Amino acid sequence: MRVLLVGAGGVGTAITRIAARRPFLDTMIVTDYDRARAEAAVASLGDRGDRFRAERVDAGDEEAVTALLRRHACDVLLNATDPRFVMPLFRAARAAGVTYLDMAMSLSRPHPERPYEECGVKLGDAQFAQAAEWEGSGTLALVGMGVEPGLSDVFARHAADELFDEIEEIGIRDGADLTVDGLVFAPSFSIWTTIEECLNPPVVYEAERGWFTTEPFSEPEVFDFPEGIGPVECVNVEHEEVLLVPRWIDARRVTFKYGLGTEFIDTLKTLHLLGLDRTEPVTVAGPGGPVAVSPRDVVAACLPDPAALGERMRGKTCAGTLVRGLKDGKRREVYLYHVVDNQWSMAEYGCQAVVWQTAINPVVALELLASGNWTGKGVLGPEAFPARPFLNLLTEYGSPWGMREQ
Amino acid sequence: MRVLLVGAGGVGTAITRIAARRPFLDTMIVTDYDRARAEAAVASLGDRGDRFRAERVDAGDEEAVTALLRRHACDVLLNATDPRFVMPLFRAARAAGVTYLDMAMSLSRPHPERPYEECGVKLGDAQFAQAAEWEGSGTLALVGMGVEPGLSDVFARHAADELFDEIEEIGIRDGADLTVDGLVFAPSFSIWTTIEECLNPPVVYEAERGWFTTEPFSEPEVFDFPEGIGPVECVNVEHEEVLLVPRWIDARRVTFKYGLGTEFIDTLKTLHLLGLDRTEPVTVAGPGGPVAVSPRDVVAACLPDPAALGERMRGKTCAGTLVRGLKDGKRREVYLYHVVDNQWSMAEYGCQAVVWQTAINPVVALELLASGNWTGKGVLGPEAFPARPFLNLLTEYGSPWGMREQ
Repeated sequence: MRVLLVGAGGVGTAITRIAARRPFLDTMIVTDYDRARAEAAVASLGDRGDRFRAERVDAGDEEAVTALLRRHACDVLLNATDPRFVMPLFRAARAAGVTYLDMAMSLSRPHPERPYEECGVKLGDAQFAQAAEWEGSGTLALVGMGVEPGLSDVFARHAADELFDEIEEIGIRDGADLTVDGLVFAPSFSIWTTIEECLNPPVVYEAERGWFTTEPFSEPEVFDFPEGIGPVECVNVEHEEVLLVPRWIDARRVTFKYGLGTEFIDTLKTLHLLGLDRTEPVTVAGPGGPVAVSPRDVVAACLPDPAALGERMRGKTCAGTLVRGLKDGKRREVYLYHVVDNQWSMAEYGCQAVVWQTAINPVVALELLASGNWTGKGVLGPEAFPARPFLNLLTEYGSPWGMREQ
Repeated sequence: MRVLLVGAGGVGTAITRIAARRPFLDTMIVTDYDRARAEAAVASLGDRGDRFRAERVDAGDEEAVTALLRRHACDVLLNATDPRFVMPLFRAARAAGVTYLDMAMSLSRPHPERPYEECGVKLGDAQFAQAAEWEGSGTLALVGMGVEPGLSDVFARHAADELFDEIEEIGIRDGADLTVDGLVFAPSFSIWTTIEECLNPPVVYEAERGWFTTEPFSEPEVFDFPEGIGPVECVNVEHEEVLLVPRWIDARRVTFKYGLGTEFIDTLKTLHLLGLDRTEPVTVAGPGGPVAVSPRDVVAACLPDPAALGERMRGKTCAGTLVRGLKDGKRREVYLYHVVDNQWSMAEYGCQAVVWQTAINPVVALELLASGNWTGKGVLGPEAFPARPFLNLLTEYGSPWGMREQ
C-alpha cells in the first residue's frame, strides 16, 4: 500500500511512528504546508524511516495534491489536517481515483433561523452528497476514521453485531483526567477546535425526529470513566458519530457527550459571554497603531501549544461508546472503551496520549484495507465495516480495548 | 475659583454638569487629549456653559499643563484622567503652585518576591513622598477625592468624629444591582481598570502589622446593600482607602471589599487563568500577517463602552463605609452609604450612575475649599478634613447619604 499522508502535525507525526512498525505499508509520503515539519516527522523515525519520504504540499491546493498522488502512484490519501481542508483533499483523492481516509468530516453550518432546534448543513453533508459518484467509480472514502469518530463507531457496530438484539441508545462518552505539571489551565487539544466543537449547536439523533440540535452544553450528566479516571461532567457536543451511526445501525437515539468537566465548560461559557470565541476580527490598539485580530486567535495565542505538552502531561484519556438496549429479552447496558495512558504513549512513541489515540485507528484501518479484511466503495463510516477484525488488530498493536457491563 | 479640569471622559463630563449648577465657580477650563471630547462636554451644558471653555492638552505633558494653568490663572487642577496620569498632573500643579485634586492615587507595584504577602510600592506612595514639599510651600494636594476613595473616607472621618469612641474595623463596601438591557455581560466601569484593580494583590491594614497584601479575591463575604440592592458577594480589592484612612483615623483594621458578585469574580479568574488579563503583547495571525496585541486590550475591544450604556442601564449603585467599634462602652456597627439610581442620574444629568457618583464628590470638595470651610496644606486625604460640612453640602446638592445601624 502506498499512502499520501497530508498533515504532519501532532496526529500526522504519531501516524508515521505507528505505521513505521507495521510491514503492510510499502511507502508513505509525509506532507505538510511546512516542509520542515514533514521532514522532522520522517527524521524522527530513524532506522524505521526507510519507507517514508517528506514533501511539501498546500492541503488547500486540490490540483497540487492530485498531482502528488499521481506522481507517487499512491493508492490512499490519508487526511491528518484540520477540518477546513476536508473538501479539497476529498476532491483531490476522487480526481486521482484513490481511496480517501479522514478523521473529521466536512464542516457544519448552523440553521439560519432556528440554530438550537434544527440542523442547518450537517457535519459530512458535503461529503455524503458525492456518495453516488464514489460508489459508481468503485472507490472508497472512509470518513471519520480516527478515535472519535472512528473507534467509537467501530464499538457501536460491535455492539449491534454481537452484544444486543435491540438498541435503545448509543451514546459516545469521551473523558480524561489529564493534567499538565506547572499549568493550572492547559487544554490537551487545540482550543480553536474545542471552541468550534463545543459552541456549535450539538446534534442529537432520535428515530422519530431524525437529527435535531439543542443549546450548547445540553443534557449534562456525570459519567464514571474506567481505569481510575473516575466521574467527569459530560455534555452534548456536535460530533460526527451522531451523523454516522444512524446511517448503518438501528438505534432509537444517538448522542455524543464530551467530558469537559465543570471548570472547562464554565471557561468556554465565559469566553462566549465576553465574545472572545468570535472569529471575525476586532480592532485593537497595537504598539504600531490599530490592528485587526480575531479574538479566538488571541485566546489560542495566550495558551501553550497542546502538542508540546506531552512531557509535562500526566493521566489517561478515554474514548468509548455506551450502549443501552435488549439482549435475549433482558435489559443490558455496556460501555466499550479504549484508554491511553500519557506516560505509556510518551515512553513508547514519544507522542502525547490524545494525539496518539487519534492516530492509531486510521493505521489499523489502512492495514485492514491492505489485507482485504475491509473492502467497500462509496462514502462509508467505520460502522459500515465488520468490527471484530478491527478490534482484534487494535489489541495486536498493543493497545487493547475494554468493556464494562453497567 | 478658577479650575483646570483635565479629562473630559465620563467622569469629567459629569463634573462639568454638576459644577455648572453651582455659583462658587468662576471659570472651568475643560481639557482633554481629544479636543472634540472637551468641546462636546462644554457644548452639552447649553445655557449653563458660559463659565466653561474647552482646550486640548496632553495630560502626560507636564510643561504644557503647567503653562495652561498659568495662562488661565487657575487656582486648582482637578484631575479626571486615568491613574497613569496622576504623577505628571500632580507635578504640573506643584510647578504652577496651585491646589491639586484627584480621584485615584499614583499606581502601585507588587512586591517582587512576596506579592501576596507584602506591599511593594503602595498606591499613593509617589505622591506622599512629596508631602513635605507641598506642606512647605503651603499648597494643598487633596488626593483620592472621588466617591471611593473620597466620600468613603469622609464617612470614615464622620464615624470617628461623631459615632464611635473606639474603632475596631473600617471596611469600605461597594456594590450595585446594575444591569444593561439586552446584554448578559456588560461591566459598568472600564474592564481594563477593573482587571487592574481586581487582579493586583489586595491591600489590608492592621494596627499590629501595618499594611500587607493577600491573594486576589480574598476574604469573600456576602454584604447586604441598602435601598433594595440586596446581598452581593464582596472580596478584598486593592483600593486607596486602605492606604488613606489609617494615616488620619485610629482603627485596628481597614479593608476595601468590592461587590463584584460571584459571576464577575469567576469571569476575572477565568481571564487570569487564560492569560487574557496580560498587558504585554502576544503575536497573533492577522488578515495582513502577524500582529502584536495586548490580550487585555482585546478583551476590552470585545465589550461595549461602559460610558455609552447609560440609556440601557437599570438599577442602583452603592458606595459606603462599614464601621465596627465601641460607643459609650457598647458595641456598635453602622454602614454609612450613598446610593445613586441610574434612572435618576440619567434623567437629571444625562450621566450614568457610576460616573455621576464619582463626579459629584470633587465638586462638593471644591465648593468647600472655595468657601473656606475646608483648608489645608500638604498631601492630604479626604479624612483629614471635617466631615460634617461635606455631608451637609452633599445633601444640599440633592444627593443625600444614609446610615444604617447594623
